[in-house]
Amino acid sequence: MNPTTTKKIDWNAIAKELKGIEIITDRLQVAKLSLDYYHFSPILQAQLKDKRGDLVVRPQNETEVIAVARTCVKHKVPLTVRGAGTGNYGQCIPLNGGIILDTTRMNQIRWIKPGLARVESGVKMAAFDKKAKEIGWELRMVPSTYRTATIGGFIGGGSGGIGSINYGQLRDRGNVQALRIVTVEDEPRILELRGDEVQKVNHAWGTNGIITELEIALAPTYPWTEIIVIFDDFISAARFGQALSDSDGLIKKLVSIHAAPIPSYFTALSTYIPEGKHCALVMLAEFCLEPFQDLVREYGGQITYQKTTEEGSKGTSIAEFTWNHTTLHARSVDSSLTYLQTFFFTLERVEQLYRHFGDEVMMHLEFLRVAGKAIPAGLQLVRYTTEERLNEIIRYHEEQGASIANPHTYILEEGGRKTIETEQLQFKEMVDPYGLMNPGKMRAWLERRGSL
Amino acid sequence: MNPTTTKKIDWNAIAKELKGIEIITDRLQVAKLSLDYYHFSPILQAQLKDKRGDLVVRPQNETEVIAVARTCVKHKVPLTVRGAGTGNYGQCIPLNGGIILDTTRMNQIRWIKPGLARVESGVKMAAFDKKAKEIGWELRMVPSTYRTATIGGFIGGGSGGIGSINYGQLRDRGNVQALRIVTVEDEPRILELRGDEVQKVNHAWGTNGIITELEIALAPTYPWTEIIVIFDDFISAARFGQALSDSDGLIKKLVSIHAAPIPSYFTALSTYIPEGKHCALVMLAEFCLEPFQDLVREYGGQITYQKTTEEGSKGTSIAEFTWNHTTLHARSVDSSLTYLQTFFFTLERVEQLYRHFGDEVMMHLEFLRVAGKAIPAGLQLVRYTTEERLNEIIRYHEEQGASIANPHTYILEEGGRKTIETEQLQFKEMVDPYGLMNPGKMRAWLERRGSL
Repeated sequence: MNPTTTKKIDWNAIAKELKGIEIITDRLQVAKLSLDYYHFSPILQAQLKDKRGDLVVRPQNETEVIAVARTCVKHKVPLTVRGAGTGNYGQCIPLNGGIILDTTRMNQIRWIKPGLARVESGVKMAAFDKKAKEIGWELRMVPSTYRTATIGGFIGGGSGGIGSINYGQLRDRGNVQALRIVTVEDEPRILELRGDEVQKVNHAWGTNGIITELEIALAPTYPWTEIIVIFDDFISAARFGQALSDSDGLIKKLVSIHAAPIPSYFTALSTYIPEGKHCALVMLAEFCLEPFQDLVREYGGQITYQKTTEEGSKGTSIAEFTWNHTTLHARSVDSSLTYLQTFFFTLERVEQLYRHFGDEVMMHLEFLRVAGKAIPAGLQLVRYTTEERLNEIIRYHEEQGASIANPHTYILEEGGRKTIETEQLQFKEMVDPYGLMNPGKMRAWLERRGSL
Repeated sequence: MNPTTTKKIDWNAIAKELKGIEIITDRLQVAKLSLDYYHFSPILQAQLKDKRGDLVVRPQNETEVIAVARTCVKHKVPLTVRGAGTGNYGQCIPLNGGIILDTTRMNQIRWIKPGLARVESGVKMAAFDKKAKEIGWELRMVPSTYRTATIGGFIGGGSGGIGSINYGQLRDRGNVQALRIVTVEDEPRILELRGDEVQKVNHAWGTNGIITELEIALAPTYPWTEIIVIFDDFISAARFGQALSDSDGLIKKLVSIHAAPIPSYFTALSTYIPEGKHCALVMLAEFCLEPFQDLVREYGGQITYQKTTEEGSKGTSIAEFTWNHTTLHARSVDSSLTYLQTFFFTLERVEQLYRHFGDEVMMHLEFLRVAGKAIPAGLQLVRYTTEERLNEIIRYHEEQGASIANPHTYILEEGGRKTIETEQLQFKEMVDPYGLMNPGKMRAWLERRGSL
């Protein structure tokens, strides 16, 4: 499938060349650092489970990154960049072996000022937020894996998350303000992309440049309180989610809606969500609690849990039951479950699909802003039977006007974006002329090379 | 029109009863404190220019307010509450004389905490913001008259303003969290309205209770920068306004769009807006400037002015050329001008009406959030000829599907709301059983009394 193979590589020579940089060759360790959470998909599981890198490097700084890039080019070795490996589509799984560049030692925060920060790509999100909160700011959006995930990994492989109800997605203008990358050329260069230019590399899965630093916009931090609201019927819960998202006077960071029986997979929350109930998991600014209660009343909900700001990071965080942590918890109870990623655009479509599939596709909604409007996105849980049936379910969604960002493919363009991003391809031609970076993931490159 | 008249009132006896409370009886002073900016409307000007109160009281605290209320009831004297008198519809102009209660001496800030504050109703908005900014917060929305306007006056007679692009309008759940009022009964009572209950009194023009304290939600304060962008054509400017409003990653507080020749009335800004150009006046978080420039480029605009955060309150603030200050500046050049208040809902309708009326109705848009969506609202300048023609213009807008909040009436229900607010009427029946408060303004009350 890919012209680059690792057959004639002299790994000892390479290790020698990289002397001074931390290298991992231990088989088990390398295996662990070759994978991500691809196993949420039974399709990807079969395709990717045996993929391994040959060695892992853990550079501490850009100089070491440049050395790694130079070596990869010299030996024409595949190079796959990873953060904490919390992705779900095999974004950082090496299809053709080679070097895995683990960024987690590049964890310096360059500066944090009101509204903006500059960090190395391996900085962990939770660690960053702890620091930023000291001056009243925090990351605008984080995945449910924020405790371990890196900022660079999120920009490389993610798209949005907790906070997207306010700030939209990473690709929205203003959220990522600059990216500094190292190219994978004979003589690697450092490039700084600013403004709209960042889209060349944003969400390109590390196929076109090694991100070493980022400038990201911040959000003011609020005294967040975590709330569980239960509902007798799912549609009321969904409408409540839309109404809360559209309530301009209520400050929130998370509006996550779960149809029964999904909450039954949330073992740690079982006290608060009786069997058969549907629920909303909400992060709300604490000073909005009183008017929020009026909204809950209007939609027939009942607040069963509230964790105050002071209790903060202690104990369970409901954020870790939302976005793809929902899938994680459900799969820890029933590993036959998988999921979809869906843009419904309207609540009417949510309702129609909810009724159509019944228990086979359990409705999980995350509200987020797209071009200024709050819309429900689905991370529905699917009772998996066969690949054929899964594709049938996807097809039916699309026939009904929903859009599926297929999480059962490791091809960049077959997931969320659907179309080839010409500017990402052109940028790859410039910064990765030998096609060494994360080979096999960018369809446009493979087609150009006639290898797909 | 109203049963209450002031014919047989013994003003000396009243003054005696109110001893200890500041009273103003000087004719010129009383005349000044009887009026507001009603003269923006030639219709209201004719109707209201001779209306005067009989005396003005300036209570310092709630105890004094209660004494005033008791006296009004005892003598069956009309009572009209005013803040700084910066309204535009004669909201606080006494139609039948009586006592004017000026709240501006009740200017204590009870407390400010993150996200929420409690103030007396006479606190001035600019003074409050100065204080709140010390701990990183500010008012969520302010009128263009924020330098002098009071918080109580804004809630009593206003609806939204600078900041509404983020937080919607005052009536949106969460923005006003509590109101404390004194009733105008034989034995005045103090009532605290919380949550949705505040709607009973919000924007009721002081017809149903004297607001003495308020709890208002705050916004985090950003390092705001003021920017002027010019455009060759109006439609590009309008589309830029919508795009900026919908850009979830760009933090703004003001998106104000002006078709030529409106900017020609902004004498102080003439250096930055060449003749014939259309402009956007923007307040933007300073750290968003770089991605903002990309947006400006996309819409063919040109930045001609930027005032940094450090320059702050020094010199001209572009905010004071927006909302109804636009009308103020235009009228200071040409006093025959008046204005409209319009919800267009879509940009297509803006464009159609812009082309239809040409120079007779000059397009001025303010973007604000309504139920989660940013929409363009109009404060168009109208070249006034006759009342008949003005009504024709209004009718045409409505035939085209726009909604006009008529600023040429002093009847509460004929302005923005259109419908009778049953809960405000019922509340008035309870707290103002003699109909003394701001008589002649609430149509529902007049109809109930058979006096209209």
